[in-house]
Amino acid sequence: MKLSELGEHEAVKRLIEEILAGQWRCPSLGPGDDAACVGGGFQNLILKIDGGSLASLWAPWMEPADIGWQAVAAAASDLVAKGAKPLAFAVSLGLDPGEDIETLKGIVRGAAEAAQAHGAWLLGGDTNSCSNCGWIDVAAVGLAEKPVGLQASPGDTVYVTTGRIGLAGLVLDSLAKGRWREAMEAYPRAFSEFARPRARLEFVELAGTGCITAATDSSDGLAYSLGKIAEAAHALVELENIPVEPEALRYAEEYGVDPLELALYGGQEYEVIFAVRGGCEKLVEERAATLGLAVARIGRLREGPQGITYRGRTLSVRGWDNFKNM
Amino acid sequence: MKLSELGEHEAVKRLIEEILAGQWRCPSLGPGDDAACVGGGFQNLILKIDGGSLASLWAPWMEPADIGWQAVAAAASDLVAKGAKPLAFAVSLGLDPGEDIETLKGIVRGAAEAAQAHGAWLLGGDTNSCSNCGWIDVAAVGLAEKPVGLQASPGDTVYVTTGRIGLAGLVLDSLAKGRWREAMEAYPRAFSEFARPRARLEFVELAGTGCITAATDSSDGLAYSLGKIAEAAHALVELENIPVEPEALRYAEEYGVDPLELALYGGQEYEVIFAVRGGCEKLVEERAATLGLAVARIGRLREGPQGITYRGRTLSVRGWDNFKNM
Repeated sequence: MKLSELGEHEAVKRLIEEILAGQWRCPSLGPGDDAACVGGGFQNLILKIDGGSLASLWAPWMEPADIGWQAVAAAASDLVAKGAKPLAFAVSLGLDPGEDIETLKGIVRGAAEAAQAHGAWLLGGDTNSCSNCGWIDVAAVGLAEKPVGLQASPGDTVYVTTGRIGLAGLVLDSLAKGRWREAMEAYPRAFSEFARPRARLEFVELAGTGCITAATDSSDGLAYSLGKIAEAAHALVELENIPVEPEALRYAEEYGVDPLELALYGGQEYEVIFAVRGGCEKLVEERAATLGLAVARIGRLREGPQGITYRGRTLSVRGWDNFKNM
Repeated sequence: MKLSELGEHEAVKRLIEEILAGQWRCPSLGPGDDAACVGGGFQNLILKIDGGSLASLWAPWMEPADIGWQAVAAAASDLVAKGAKPLAFAVSLGLDPGEDIETLKGIVRGAAEAAQAHGAWLLGGDTNSCSNCGWIDVAAVGLAEKPVGLQASPGDTVYVTTGRIGLAGLVLDSLAKGRWREAMEAYPRAFSEFARPRARLEFVELAGTGCITAATDSSDGLAYSLGKIAEAAHALVELENIPVEPEALRYAEEYGVDPLELALYGGQEYEVIFAVRGGCEKLVEERAATLGLAVARIGRLREGPQGITYRGRTLSVRGWDNFKNM
């Protein structure tokens, strides 16, 4: 069966069940987590590889340096969501031999800048050639004092960092509908944050409280991330509040788009979605305030059929699928 | 300037000089080494990313599982050459959505088998889509008690592991010249070792002796690897002996090819080329014998103009170049 018929998420499920089961070495992190724990004597060491084809990543307004930055920030976000502080990155690039050296230099410069912005280093990498194609992959290692898996339970409160949900959805919607030039003029901040996202490093400190029962980043979309938490908990995520960014609300109104669509199904956004053990909320909120990290309560996990509801309405759990969406 | 005009090695040199200088964190390992050391409190932690386009890696007789195996073994070899024991791998794949799920499963199965054959684990990865293209990248972390850089000096003795030099050259030559079918029948071992190479894990134990001053793997060809050691030492590698594998000698005779060409410029071979501090040779050779690792003395580093000679004749230092060779 073709990958496009099966879809990425089903294909990965089969890989895990048929081949990879038993490879994960830590009780805290397993298949489905954003990053893996090395295990053995290295329970705190977190490894991630993350990338994509340049064609899928390269929006028309982006510079080569933005591509390098985005790729490193995306890998950093996966570490951070598991409670790990990034230590080092390495980047592998595939480029057409007809490409200019300035493109290669730009991508690597952006990657090095992002590594430093995330408190880490870009330790070289690998260059490859590829006719009429191109890709970037980032290897990342980090250190997690308290690795955060997907072990939430009914009763836990669900949060999202900074509440800036929907800006990436705004950008992607404007791109899909061919109006990105006007949207970029009207909503410049959405576009600049899209090109140079920052992983929420402060979340690593929150993980240190031991109050976080599950976390994942929102890179495949808020709904998909919540679905992962609900699935692992065999529970229902009851949303009461979806803090859509005001710019995304304005964009939605201007173009007659559902703002929840932007917030729930955008993807390529790097906030942390996390669950906090019942009774621990105050401690986490106070710690977040000390760190200057905005966090918003968005709902609660309940006993019930696995899924997501928003003010009583059931939300579909879908998200970015590399083999179907491209 | 186009990458094809500049070549991979010059392009990487510019990246290092203009962007990456200062990123490397350990005195032992730096730019030009096969893998990087994370640094800070993690001087023994080694990180590598390594990959390529499927078009460049996929020889016509190879199964999907061989591709996955090769990619992991190649990354393992880079760790091992720096004295690091592999701990974990993660793999990123780009595949056309029209590709069959069995191809994806085959590649991942081979990667998982190679990880285990190298005493480590395959901790998941990332799947991506890419129209009419495809790639594989492997992220690898390892632990080096004594990281081995490129700090050889005149007087050091130069070695190569196992002496099986030239088998990959045989395979690549037969492929380039359109006679791989007959060569595969006559020299099956060369083809099976090419499809399923093994990194020389025992070398990690040799690195533990503290006698090794420089090492690199032979994946870009023996001449290129020796050139790296000579360049870092600002010295001459005087070769006295190039242990060409008997099968490669027979192939060279059969087809009228220079056997040294197969041994020196083949690439995609995963032996370790290393230098041993003067006076330490006996200890290293005895330790290798205990480990069951064949090692062959091939020459010595001398004061002199940087380069390589073989029995008085100067050898050209060239090797695989992704942007020029493809």
